[in-house]
Amino acid sequence: MITLYDCATAPSPRRARIFLAEKNVPHETVQVDLRSGEQLGEAFRRINPQCTVPALVTDEGPVLTDNASIAAYLEARFPEPPLLGRTPLDKAEIAGWQWRVEFEGLMAIAEAVRNSSPAMAGRALPGPVGYAQIPALAERGLARLHHFLAVLNDHLAHRDFIAAGQFSVADITAVVAVDFARIVKVKPGEAHPHLLRWREAMQRRGTMG
Amino acid sequence: MITLYDCATAPSPRRARIFLAEKNVPHETVQVDLRSGEQLGEAFRRINPQCTVPALVTDEGPVLTDNASIAAYLEARFPEPPLLGRTPLDKAEIAGWQWRVEFEGLMAIAEAVRNSSPAMAGRALPGPVGYAQIPALAERGLARLHHFLAVLNDHLAHRDFIAAGQFSVADITAVVAVDFARIVKVKPGEAHPHLLRWREAMQRRGTMG
Repeated sequence: MITLYDCATAPSPRRARIFLAEKNVPHETVQVDLRSGEQLGEAFRRINPQCTVPALVTDEGPVLTDNASIAAYLEARFPEPPLLGRTPLDKAEIAGWQWRVEFEGLMAIAEAVRNSSPAMAGRALPGPVGYAQIPALAERGLARLHHFLAVLNDHLAHRDFIAAGQFSVADITAVVAVDFARIVKVKPGEAHPHLLRWREAMQRRGTMG
Repeated sequence: MITLYDCATAPSPRRARIFLAEKNVPHETVQVDLRSGEQLGEAFRRINPQCTVPALVTDEGPVLTDNASIAAYLEARFPEPPLLGRTPLDKAEIAGWQWRVEFEGLMAIAEAVRNSSPAMAGRALPGPVGYAQIPALAERGLARLHHFLAVLNDHLAHRDFIAAGQFSVADITAVVAVDFARIVKVKPGEAHPHLLRWREAMQRRGTMG
């Protein structure tokens, strides 16, 4: 049996959650309460010493603690439907967009929020090292995020999916990024009709919860 | 026939070049002279409108212009030897480390150099939008880079390869990152014996040129 350690309100485990739902992989879900600091407690530390979610526990190996690992694992073990693409060209296009959405979208949001939120002071990067906030980086993150939404909207003008003409992990990552942007008060709007159409179609899949 | 548009002195196309060499994929190489601005000229713009290297031209589709796309394409089209892993768990470990080396290594170097070099003023991020340099981010990039080398050294204490007990794309990316660190005057040294041992073993493969 596969178990996903999840947190319903956090963007990173949401990527793994949608991936599992789209693959229709039988699994259990355990909620970890990040607000009360449950991830730092002894019980969860035994499951994932890095104290992060998502954490995917399988029956065959070490816990998987990042979305790159989780997607690679699930795609190989449960190939259908493919979410990383089937042909070499499809795989290429999906991998390329996945990287862009992570770098230009998710990372821009992380820069904006981690370098401005009082709650994140001294934790401007994830991981064990404490880094001070850089206010100019928060501003730049916000500018990048606005640019990213414009790029994505243009890209979707004549497309139903982010990459390779099919639903893929790039759509999952993009949905999570676009929705998570609200944490820095950015939402797609009238300037992004194609993005909004795509977002509504994604919602109708019923796996984005 | 496959053609790699390359630049012998740049880190990003080096990743694609090593990947092709390790797969032993027959291909042609065309050098693009980034110093003279050849990538901005009309001839190269027709090949890759984004004016970047690496650019991989294949016989079956659009030019591939980033390392994520290139690795995914080549692995699918030329499966042997696998550089992204064979089993689900190997694929997971390799994808996870590949992401870490990109985010904690390559990105740290990029932050350090792009936010400090006079030649990069106004181009603190790749791509078409001009972003101003953030001196504090250059400093943070340098701190992250030193931390990354320490982490990698510890990780390699009892290992011959970065991930999954086998040579993989994670080793390629890590070699390129460790070598490229010299652009900000950082080199592994006495504090990194395991990293140096691994680096020497990588050199003996004869594909790292």
